[in-house]
Amino acid sequence: MRRAAATPKLDDGPHRVRLHRIGIDTYQEPVVFMRADSAVCRSEGFEAQSRVKLTLAARSLVATLYTVDDPLLADAQAGLSEAAWMALGAREGDEVEISHPEPIESFAFVRGKVYGQPFTDTAIEAVIRDIAAGRYSGLELAAFVTACGGGSLARDETVALTRAMLDAGQRLEWTQSPVLDKHCVGGLPGNRTTPIVVAIVAACGLTIPKTSSRAITSPAGTADTMEMLAPVELDVAAMRRVVEREGGCVVWGGAMSLSPADDILIRVERPLDFDSPGQLVASILSKKLAAGSTQLLVEMPVGPTAKVRSADNAHIIAALLEDVGRTLDLSVRVLQSDGLQPVGHGVGPALEAFDVLAVLDNAPQAPADLRERSLRLAGELLEMGGRAAAGQGLALARETLASGAAQRKFMAICAAQGGLREPPVAAYRQVFVAPRAGIISAIDNRRLSRIAKLAGAPRAPAAGLQLHHHLGDRVARGEPLFTLHAESPGELVYAGSYANLHPDVIRLEEPAA
Amino acid sequence: MRRAAATPKLDDGPHRVRLHRIGIDTYQEPVVFMRADSAVCRSEGFEAQSRVKLTLAARSLVATLYTVDDPLLADAQAGLSEAAWMALGAREGDEVEISHPEPIESFAFVRGKVYGQPFTDTAIEAVIRDIAAGRYSGLELAAFVTACGGGSLARDETVALTRAMLDAGQRLEWTQSPVLDKHCVGGLPGNRTTPIVVAIVAACGLTIPKTSSRAITSPAGTADTMEMLAPVELDVAAMRRVVEREGGCVVWGGAMSLSPADDILIRVERPLDFDSPGQLVASILSKKLAAGSTQLLVEMPVGPTAKVRSADNAHIIAALLEDVGRTLDLSVRVLQSDGLQPVGHGVGPALEAFDVLAVLDNAPQAPADLRERSLRLAGELLEMGGRAAAGQGLALARETLASGAAQRKFMAICAAQGGLREPPVAAYRQVFVAPRAGIISAIDNRRLSRIAKLAGAPRAPAAGLQLHHHLGDRVARGEPLFTLHAESPGELVYAGSYANLHPDVIRLEEPAA
Repeated sequence: MRRAAATPKLDDGPHRVRLHRIGIDTYQEPVVFMRADSAVCRSEGFEAQSRVKLTLAARSLVATLYTVDDPLLADAQAGLSEAAWMALGAREGDEVEISHPEPIESFAFVRGKVYGQPFTDTAIEAVIRDIAAGRYSGLELAAFVTACGGGSLARDETVALTRAMLDAGQRLEWTQSPVLDKHCVGGLPGNRTTPIVVAIVAACGLTIPKTSSRAITSPAGTADTMEMLAPVELDVAAMRRVVEREGGCVVWGGAMSLSPADDILIRVERPLDFDSPGQLVASILSKKLAAGSTQLLVEMPVGPTAKVRSADNAHIIAALLEDVGRTLDLSVRVLQSDGLQPVGHGVGPALEAFDVLAVLDNAPQAPADLRERSLRLAGELLEMGGRAAAGQGLALARETLASGAAQRKFMAICAAQGGLREPPVAAYRQVFVAPRAGIISAIDNRRLSRIAKLAGAPRAPAAGLQLHHHLGDRVARGEPLFTLHAESPGELVYAGSYANLHPDVIRLEEPAA
Repeated sequence: MRRAAATPKLDDGPHRVRLHRIGIDTYQEPVVFMRADSAVCRSEGFEAQSRVKLTLAARSLVATLYTVDDPLLADAQAGLSEAAWMALGAREGDEVEISHPEPIESFAFVRGKVYGQPFTDTAIEAVIRDIAAGRYSGLELAAFVTACGGGSLARDETVALTRAMLDAGQRLEWTQSPVLDKHCVGGLPGNRTTPIVVAIVAACGLTIPKTSSRAITSPAGTADTMEMLAPVELDVAAMRRVVEREGGCVVWGGAMSLSPADDILIRVERPLDFDSPGQLVASILSKKLAAGSTQLLVEMPVGPTAKVRSADNAHIIAALLEDVGRTLDLSVRVLQSDGLQPVGHGVGPALEAFDVLAVLDNAPQAPADLRERSLRLAGELLEMGGRAAAGQGLALARETLASGAAQRKFMAICAAQGGLREPPVAAYRQVFVAPRAGIISAIDNRRLSRIAKLAGAPRAPAAGLQLHHHLGDRVARGEPLFTLHAESPGELVYAGSYANLHPDVIRLEEPAA
């Protein structure tokens, strides 16, 4: 119980310790490890779960402290988790200053909200500024998200939240106008319309500088899929050159610091599954306003396993999106879509990229559902951008795709982003067949994604699966239902054994006699 | 980016890995460390921040996963944080089963509450059962605490919460009646009335089986102070023997599993500083009902730096305590007290113990404020327990103390708990004197506690400080204000240099000319 007293530090200057990359991944939570009996912990009163401030040159960070025993670290050493290491831009042996973090004054506003006081503009600005600066602990983030949960954010609070999240990050500006954008709420496996939509819209002469995300929990994000076809990690200057030349792009938005508070809040909203209409709207609109968009089309898949589960809820969110957007000079249109089943054939970065190429190529085997969804979205955007009269957008989109103009534009965009690539093909495959004849009555999106991830997606980009049938299709006994793709035999076997344990991923109903 | 595929696990049985005590203290959050490229992480899809279930013989635990690199652990090894190690009762090399935790169904009720649905009895029971079983993550606990924050818990929800917290733990039963108890909300440095109150009340023939806590953030808890005078880590059987014989005891309640959900919630409520009247009431009453009490006296210090800051708030909490108590067959009386300054002379386990002994000994140097507070509380309890008529309790308490009966009872209780001890005396001391003449106009409780902790309290039990004056005292230049006590010269110097940096801990005002 008793420990030896550490050498005390007598002057009033900051403590300095040497950084060590300890090799522990805590996901996005920055953690610092120090010895409990170190001079800094003893003299500052730091204990396990204390919040401590680390300052390295111009960067600083607030991290959670875990204390360690003797063999793991030396007295004057601080081990950093991967997230903390990246955020500080540290190198092994760098000397860092350690101190108590300033108290988070803005948390009083969160406490006030819990006690029934609405957020003022100033209050929410202060909260979001501190969140974006990484000053809130996980517990404090969870409290904020909960305090904003349900219907607790009024319309004006939602406007203030959106504006504050926008102001906390970088904002792109474009000389072109209008600047079009699209977003999909929630997402369905394989719903990779973006590259097709961007190609059609840009081919018609409109501006659509699209920033996309990588997968967080899914087998592929749009940026992962696009990366199979061209480089996506462009900086703002390079992105701007692509858009100047081609009118559109599909790049990874993660490095551009667009609404950084949103990136931080998402890591708490996701496990709690708590985002209210207000938070959802602020999250979407702040990112899009930061990207410099003036017209936004939001696709909202509705279905029992989708993010938005009922048409009523979809209407509430749509009305709020349009209303808050209008207040912040962003014209928003919302399109409900079917959220019952995966879109296209492929699930996984490369397999989805092949679907995109097939649609753009007007290939006979191209997935019709992906094509029709893309055309519908592109058609709306053509109308919103003034390229087509009301009701004429879909026809123009179809013509642009059929003529090959969309394909040519896509190739040009890929070239401008750094060169078209050939997606990789998986070396290991296994076909799963129908155990009996029947009609496909349900597809479990969640389990299907899990199989694709067990096969290695998105880490192994060629991995995933190809669906050979969709809802309502009639299949014979022994007919292929889906093919697993993997880059290693072990992963193929593992994903396959999981699939065998869950034969109901694709449910077959007896056909009516 | 690409990692080698792990050997897949093909059968459907649980994964087994060997436990290693990795020597990382994460405070109360159970954490498990495993290699990201290990077979279990790869095949189960576990990633940093995943929640995983560990089963070792009859015990199981849900922990947060952090992934580590090669050198720290072997493939089939799992490193446990101290909290996880203790909770599982693990030994080095034990083989543990690792699996996905069952989904926490009860969190849907928390989500419902956020969306405006009141908690039903069934809902809150399910939530508290899962919390007590350690199934909620820190984020989920923070969400629950926030959802219950402010005024959001109605009276009936508070009753249900109290009952659920009570039902989740062990409950002591006594054949004696009434069973008296006391509690202090928040707490002031040095406010160590409990041993004195128990001695007086038991000396008058009443039953008062007192369970107390150790310090969490303060320089000493009641159990820490009592431990300077007698053993306090008694099990229920030993505690029962003491109470059968002497009518009272002062033991550590931490090992008795009284309202374990409360212990878990406190670790989130404290950093968020969020507890609503409803939560505060449920926390206090569930612990006291679990201890088998029938009559409870609650001391509520009110002051700008105390937990309860205004008389209005004190009234609301007092009314709720009495109301909910009545519903659950616990008779509650609330006594407001002055929360402006520390009580007694000593701050720190041994120094507070000396104050207790001096009061019981009727010594001339005994702190009058500690004596008068103790007498007032004991007097109330004597009336609540039917030993004194209304208005006569204080006189009986005073007589019991003055006659030496309370001191004799206290010695008997100490003997029954395992033998009276002599508190340790610090080897290193430093006197801090008034820099000029003046009247003491304010004492910073928070900073004073910090100085005592920097000197080593409660870890070094003889450490802390002795106050030589209280508010309103007139002191001459050079007169001692307080004396620092430490067990090592380094700690003395460090606490002293902090005290020198903050001369306003004890504020002096010019005396009126």
